[in-house]
This record gives sequence, C-alpha cells and structure tokens, in this order.
Amino acid sequence: MTTDPPAVTVGVDFGTLSGRALVVAVQDGKELGSAVHDYTHGVVDEALPDGRELPPDWALQIPQDWRDVLRFAVPGALREAGVRPEQVVGIATDFTACTVLPATSGGTPLCELPGLTGRPHAYPKLWRHHAAQPEADLIVRRAEESGQPWLARYGGKISSEWQYAKALQVLREDPEVYAAADRWIEAADWIVWELTGAESRNLCTAGYKGIHQDGAYPDAGFLASLHPGFAGFTAKLEHPLAQLGTPAGRLSAAAAELTGLREGTVVAVGNVDAHVTSAAAQALDPGHMLAIMGTSTCHIMNSDVPADVPGMCGVVRDGVVPGLWGYEAGQSGVGDIFAWAVRTTTPQEYAAEARRRGISPHELLTEKAAAQPVGGHGLLALDWHSGNRSVLVDHHLSGLVVGLTLDTRPEDLYRALVEATAYGTRTIIEAFETAGVPVTDFTAGGGLLKNRFLMQTYSDILNRPINVLASDQGPALGAAIHAAVAAGAYPDIRAASAAMGRLDRRAYLPDPARAVAYDRLYAEYRELHDHFGRGGSGVMHRLRALRTQA
Amino acid sequence: MTTDPPAVTVGVDFGTLSGRALVVAVQDGKELGSAVHDYTHGVVDEALPDGRELPPDWALQIPQDWRDVLRFAVPGALREAGVRPEQVVGIATDFTACTVLPATSGGTPLCELPGLTGRPHAYPKLWRHHAAQPEADLIVRRAEESGQPWLARYGGKISSEWQYAKALQVLREDPEVYAAADRWIEAADWIVWELTGAESRNLCTAGYKGIHQDGAYPDAGFLASLHPGFAGFTAKLEHPLAQLGTPAGRLSAAAAELTGLREGTVVAVGNVDAHVTSAAAQALDPGHMLAIMGTSTCHIMNSDVPADVPGMCGVVRDGVVPGLWGYEAGQSGVGDIFAWAVRTTTPQEYAAEARRRGISPHELLTEKAAAQPVGGHGLLALDWHSGNRSVLVDHHLSGLVVGLTLDTRPEDLYRALVEATAYGTRTIIEAFETAGVPVTDFTAGGGLLKNRFLMQTYSDILNRPINVLASDQGPALGAAIHAAVAAGAYPDIRAASAAMGRLDRRAYLPDPARAVAYDRLYAEYRELHDHFGRGGSGVMHRLRALRTQA
Repeated sequence: MTTDPPAVTVGVDFGTLSGRALVVAVQDGKELGSAVHDYTHGVVDEALPDGRELPPDWALQIPQDWRDVLRFAVPGALREAGVRPEQVVGIATDFTACTVLPATSGGTPLCELPGLTGRPHAYPKLWRHHAAQPEADLIVRRAEESGQPWLARYGGKISSEWQYAKALQVLREDPEVYAAADRWIEAADWIVWELTGAESRNLCTAGYKGIHQDGAYPDAGFLASLHPGFAGFTAKLEHPLAQLGTPAGRLSAAAAELTGLREGTVVAVGNVDAHVTSAAAQALDPGHMLAIMGTSTCHIMNSDVPADVPGMCGVVRDGVVPGLWGYEAGQSGVGDIFAWAVRTTTPQEYAAEARRRGISPHELLTEKAAAQPVGGHGLLALDWHSGNRSVLVDHHLSGLVVGLTLDTRPEDLYRALVEATAYGTRTIIEAFETAGVPVTDFTAGGGLLKNRFLMQTYSDILNRPINVLASDQGPALGAAIHAAVAAGAYPDIRAASAAMGRLDRRAYLPDPARAVAYDRLYAEYRELHDHFGRGGSGVMHRLRALRTQA
Repeated sequence: MTTDPPAVTVGVDFGTLSGRALVVAVQDGKELGSAVHDYTHGVVDEALPDGRELPPDWALQIPQDWRDVLRFAVPGALREAGVRPEQVVGIATDFTACTVLPATSGGTPLCELPGLTGRPHAYPKLWRHHAAQPEADLIVRRAEESGQPWLARYGGKISSEWQYAKALQVLREDPEVYAAADRWIEAADWIVWELTGAESRNLCTAGYKGIHQDGAYPDAGFLASLHPGFAGFTAKLEHPLAQLGTPAGRLSAAAAELTGLREGTVVAVGNVDAHVTSAAAQALDPGHMLAIMGTSTCHIMNSDVPADVPGMCGVVRDGVVPGLWGYEAGQSGVGDIFAWAVRTTTPQEYAAEARRRGISPHELLTEKAAAQPVGGHGLLALDWHSGNRSVLVDHHLSGLVVGLTLDTRPEDLYRALVEATAYGTRTIIEAFETAGVPVTDFTAGGGLLKNRFLMQTYSDILNRPINVLASDQGPALGAAIHAAVAAGAYPDIRAASAAMGRLDRRAYLPDPARAVAYDRLYAEYRELHDHFGRGGSGVMHRLRALRTQA
C-alpha cells in the first residue's frame, strides 16, 4: 500500500519518566520523526503534589502528565517528520504495566475529582509501586489453598505490582476511594479512552496483569476469600476484551484538538511496552524470543502451545498477537547489577582513568574485562541481587560470587556479573525447551545493546546467533506497527511487522571455542543455581531473615 | 634477680623487610630502647644483585643484610636504652621461617663464595619463596603412598615453603649448588652461628619446618623415593637439637666487635618469630592460644597431649617450650583480604572522604561498618581468598560472598570479610576442642590489634574474652625473654614470661546479645564451609582449574 504523500502512523510510548511519539512510514517502517515529553511530576514516590507525604515503597503518577505527552510530543513528532495530519492513518499507544488507576464510569481519574485530590489511593499506581506486597502474599496464599487453576500460568506467583494486589490495598486502606472507583483500569487502556472517548480493554494487560485466563477473571468466591468487600471487584474490570492490533475506536474531537491529528483517525487498542516491541523486532513467530535488556530483562515469546514452563511471569492466549500463546519471562536484575558493580567496585584510579579518557566507568570496566580469556578471572556469580524472577520465582534470593582471590580485580567482578546474567538467560531458554517449547531464534533489544562485548558474551554463552532490534525506539515503533494494522494497512500484526519492523539479523555469532569453554562454566552456574535456588541450601533466605530482624 | 645497674637482655627480631633490636630489663620486661635496620636488598624476588633475573614465585634474601641488623640495630638499641654492654646478660634472636640457606661446613653462605654469587640457588630462600610447589606436591604424594607417620603431624601437607621442598628444588635445578652445600640451615640457626661462631640447631624449626618428629628426620628410603640423589639429604641437617631457652654458646670476638656487646655474652638458641611471641604474650600454659593477626594469622598453642587436630601446620614436641606439645595453626588470608577489599571496593567518594578526614580507607570502612547491627548487611563470606590453611589445608579454595543485593555497600562487604576471618578462627578453636585439646584462653597480637572494632567483633564471634599482647614488639620481646632464660636469670621460659611478658587481660569482652546473633551466622558459615570445603561442591577447584587453563 502506498499513497502520495505516503501514509504514516504514530506510535506513542509511555515510559516511566517520559513519553515519546514516533512517526513511521506505513510502507516500510521508516522512522520519520519523533519527540519526547518529560513528565512534569515524574514518579511521585515521596509526596503528593499538595505536599502530603507517601509511605515507603509507594510510586504514583499524575494523569495530566500523560495527557501532556499527547499534547506536546505528538505534534512535535509530526513537525519533525514534516508530515501533515491527513497522512496519519492511525495512532497506537503502549504503556508501562501494570500501571493502574481508579476512575469514574466516564473515565475520569479519581485523583482529578474535587475532594479526592488529597487521597493517595485516588492516584494511578505506577508499575513499581511495591507497597501492596502483603496483599500479593495473601492472594498467592489463598490461591494455593483453593487450588486456583490460573496460578500456574503466572509461575505460581501473583506480583505485588499487578491489578489485584494494588486494588486490594486500596480497599483495605481507603475503602471510600475503592467504593468510588467505578472502573479499575490499566493506564494502557485509560490513555486509549482519552483518545477515543470510550472505554476499551486489551487482552494483553487483562491476561498478564489482570489474571484473565480461559475467558474469565477469578471468581467471586475466591475474591471474597481475600476480603469480604472484594467479592465484586471484577465488576470494575468487566468489559469486552479487544484483540491486539484491532481498532479501539476513532480519535475524538477533543483528542484531535489535543494532538493536532484529524478527528476520526483510527486508534488501536492499548498495549504494553515490552510486548509491543516484539512487532518492532519481528519476533512474533512461535519460538522467536525477544529479550528486552535494560536494568532488568523481559523475555517475550509466542508459541502455538500453552505449556507449563516453570517460572513464567505469565502465559496469555492472544497476549502478544492474536491466535498464539504469549509467554513472558523475566530476569529481575541485569543492568542494575552492573550499575551496582560500578557504584561499589570502581576504585578511584579507575574512576580517574575513565574521566581522563572521557568514557563511562561501564565502558572502562568493559574494555578491561573484554581482553580476558573465558574463565581467566576464575569467578562465578549468581545474578540474584534483585532476587530471581524466572525460573525460580523467588525474590528473597541474593547475589553470590565465588572464586575470589587476592588477585581479583574490579573488571573481573564486572565480567563475572555480565556472564552471570547471560547464564540466567540461558537457564530461561532451557526451561522453555525442556517444557517442550522450542526457542529457535533469539533477538535482543533495549539499552544494553550498546555494550558490544556484553552482546558477544551472550552469544557465546547462549551458543546462538543473536539478532538485534535495529531501532532505538522499539516500543514506539511497535505501537506504530499496531496502528498500521488497526488502520487496515496490513492484514495482521505479523505481516505489518515483516514490512515495518527493524531487525539486524545474526548481528552476533557465537565463537565456537568460547562457547565450549562457557559450557563448562554454565554447568558450574547451574550447580550453584540449583543448590542455592532449589533447596540445597536455604542460606540466602536465612540471611535475609536475619537482616530483616536486624 | 636485680642488679645495679639493672641487667638487660637484647632480643633481635629478623622480619621480612627489616630487623629490630630491643633492649629489655630482665627484672620486669620493661622495654628500654630499640632500633630498626631496613634490609638493603629487601626481598630479592625479581633479580639477583648482579642483575640476573629470577623466575616467578622466587623470593631470596642476602645474608649481609641480616649481619647489618647486628651491626646497626643492636648498637642503636643499646644507645637508645642508655645501657652499657656489661649490663647485657644475654642476647637472643628470632627469624622468619622457613627461611633457609645452603652453607659450607664453616657456616659461610654459598652465595658468598666466589664463583657462586651468580647462582640463584646459592642464596637463602625466604619463607615466601613459592617456586618449590612441584617438589612439595611430590613430597606429599610419596609420603601418602608410603604411609609416613609424620604426615599427620602437619595436617597431611608439607608446605612448599619448608626445608625439604626448597632443598629438593635446589637438587633438581642446580645439583652443583646442592652438592656444594655441606649444611642446609634455617636462617634462625645461621644467625646464631654468626653470633657464636659455632653451629647450633633449635628444636622449633627442626620440628615445624624440618619434619623432625619422634627424634628423627624422614628416613633415607623415603628421601630416595623423591630423587635418587636426595637419599642422604639429612646429613646436611644432622646436628644435636637444642631446647629453646637454652644457651647456644657465647658471643664470639668477631660478633662482639660487630654488635658492640661484650665477648662471651650468652647467646640463646634460635627461634621463630611467631613462636617466640608466645613468651611475650604470656601464652605458654596448655590451652592458652596466641593468635598473631596480620596479613595472615598464625595460631600458637601448647598442650600436654599430642592430639590429632585436623589441619594443623605442625605439632611439635618442645616446639614452643620444653616439655609441651606446641601446636601451630594458621589462616592463610586475613589482613591481606581486607587490603584486597580496600583495593577493590573503595569507590572514589570513599577515598575522597578518607583523604579529607585524614584517615585511611580501612579506618573509614571500619567506621561505617561498625555502626551496623549484627546481620544487618545480610552478607556472609568465606575468607578463602588465599585458600584455607587450617583446618581444611586446601590452597585451591577461594573466597565467596553471598547475600549481595543492589543495596550492598563497600562497608557491608568489608564487615562481612572481617566477620568471615573471625568465623575462620572460631572454626580452628572448635577443631582443637573437638579433638580433645581445650582452648581455655585466647590472646591476640599483631598489626590488626589496632582495629578495635575488629577485635570486638572477634570477641563477639568467638564468644570469649580476648587478652591482648601489650607490646608493639612482641617477637623481639619474646626473644629477649628467651635470652634471660638462657642467661640463667629465670629457671625456665614460663617463669621468665610471667615476669617479663606484657599482657592486657580481658581487653575485649563479648557482648551477649551480639554473641547470640553471631551464633546463628556462624552456623551458616559452617554450612558454606563444609559445602565448599569438604566436598559438597568442587566448584572452587574447578574454577581454579579453568582459570589455570585459560
């Protein structure tokens, strides 16, 4: 499909601190222009705008900041791209998740109602709001007790970040706000409501964050077992669930005014940043894994079959593209472990050298580490500084380093941590394959792509070629692809992805000799992994308990 | 016994980089004056004085440097003390061990013979010469094969540092030098030869470094199994062995000229720095353990009984004082592990803070670490960065840290390492007690005494009071005490120690609450200790092997 002037779509990616709009050519995915808008309030984790202080582990956001992305970033991207509104055939969004808010039946966030602006629970809870851990623990306990069939789909664990734990916290701590919330809605769907003027709900967040499995939410009996007042909770969620890549509606007059786009422009159903990136990375076919590698790593993969893979974050039918089972796995600490290493084990002479040479400590440590032969540092680490998400699903595990000598240098530790995260990825891949879900292709995206040594190390340790997402704006590009499908420019997401996605195939190839050497080290990693992670030793849990007591 | 002017003795301590003379009042052990002489050549580990390069792991010394200590430090100490030579009733020495050299039958070091000055093997091998590891491995293997009864007295391991391994290396690599060596003699005995003009040999080094057990050296058959030419090796050692604290002879005219002391002054038999310190620390009674805590820790203790305590460095009848069994145990890495931590995990802002406040990084990390409650850092370490001497006797083990999180700070790591070394000491004490050798008293000496937090932590973890050697010059003071015994001022070493030793009793007392908390952490340490050190996991050995291959 071509037009003259060419058709474009707009993808809008709502991140943790800012939102980005990207204008993309429908024909070939060429990125024509983009603009970023930083949220005025960022993450609200210390005090409400009125100065009211928040307890620890809270993290809120302000809906107006999101609207401002539509208001500033969308027109900005159009300007940079030099395209006119009539060229825009569709718009789609993606959002962090689970970021969720209480709203009226008309879609107004409760925090914008007079009388509720001073109530913390009236605000959207950002994905990283971690104050609902007691509620999450209760949900898991009750689900185990009553044998809820959906629990296995989430690796046996319902996160404190997800819809139910956060909502239950509202009910327990501010029942008035809970009662006032006609709707409990993912920001991913709320932003689409802002665009279309009508509520819609997407299958992705409903499945991954809302425990929607096999066509239903958890039943009222189960919910009542959590809290008598929670029995009817799903009434705040119930709404037809839309397939990804379909139109949620058309741009309202108000949203057209806000964005500078034409009223009636097609708006796609909402989506999640990680999941929508699969379209940008052309990682949609069954067995094609996408790893989005940043402070943590998120693994997204489709399959024809719903298998019982241990330690998944979620398995959702139609969760990434219609017709397939979308698997999500995760490593809770990756880039933030390297940042910890830089913070903790960069001596002053290293810092001085990096400064002198105008490179970052990460680049310096990487350079020093890269020259070593495999196994030369004699170290082995467990990458559990933030616990282990997949495949052990145990947030009370901790990091470990063995092999230390008086000759161990900071770059040795750094390399060992890089390797450990790659062993962690390999463990996840092997869990898929052992469960009968082959992983045939591995694609990487995210901020860690810029570390070429790290990527090569992953290729060597996985002993696989690694494809690389060839866009710095993966989520926004993915959203733009979804917009093109919703607009009818392509028959489905996979076809659109094939035309518009950006992939550098086989960007890294394993070195056979290094792969063999790493096989031996990986065997050692697995021994430690199973010893400390699977009951051989409970020392990590006991140390954590002693720490908590102290 | 008093005289007017008062009688004094001189103790001379030969260290790794310098020698120190100390003048001490015989009556009460008061330290009257001291002087230090730095060895001109220090440790010869890169090249001989003529420029000839040395292989890795070599460490030699130059005998003239030792003579210069007699020549400069002894008169210097007399001057500072303001005593006249006729007040000096005796002189004694102590030396690093095993520091050993080839000499002629007249006591001339081979390296001083024309024609041999360019031969590395003609020089004294310092204790830390580690190039005879293949020879040590062979000795252990053959001893195991032939069931040598003495092997158990050394924890099943003969060190590459000791007399046989070093001599066998000479034979294998430079048989001419080996053949030219009429005598193979500890520097501890050689220096006494310099003073008296006649050879003497002490029971301490013969037992701990020369495999002299139950009245004999290893037999010729065993020695021949190491190398056909080695069968007669002990002829280079054979000499009557003198009890510690007895006179070796009297000061020769030449030595009197050298030192400024009177000809005929009593000279005590040679001794080892660590062992002689027991006299200074009044730690001679059975069950009184002395821990000399520096870069590594050496534990010395007497007992009435020869028991099979696992992992000893040596058990020697009369090895510390006549009539008792002297036990030596050791932790191969202590202060040098803390130095490693400072080198590796002191970020630039910590270094800057220490500089600004005019304190060392050790002091800063200690201060930050000291404020924490027990277990607050959530970490546990194994203090095996230099392997484990006692009780596992395995130099291929390595350090480990578990419990790491993104919140782990440098001071947390530092404290965990301090604690790990204390757990290591507790493991040694428990090995003694389990073997039926009670440890009733614990006294600490050495450079780590200056860290009060560390000492208190040891007291808490051992759950014992800690006495402190109240002299900065423990070895020299111990030697001076031996000199007083040799001079007849006291009936035996224990009596002299009681009068002249310096002890701050119960300087540290355990805090009951911390002791209870540490009991729980120690249990975790022991679990890791046994898992990684006793065959639960061989990962440390395998990592080391991979490192060596790499």
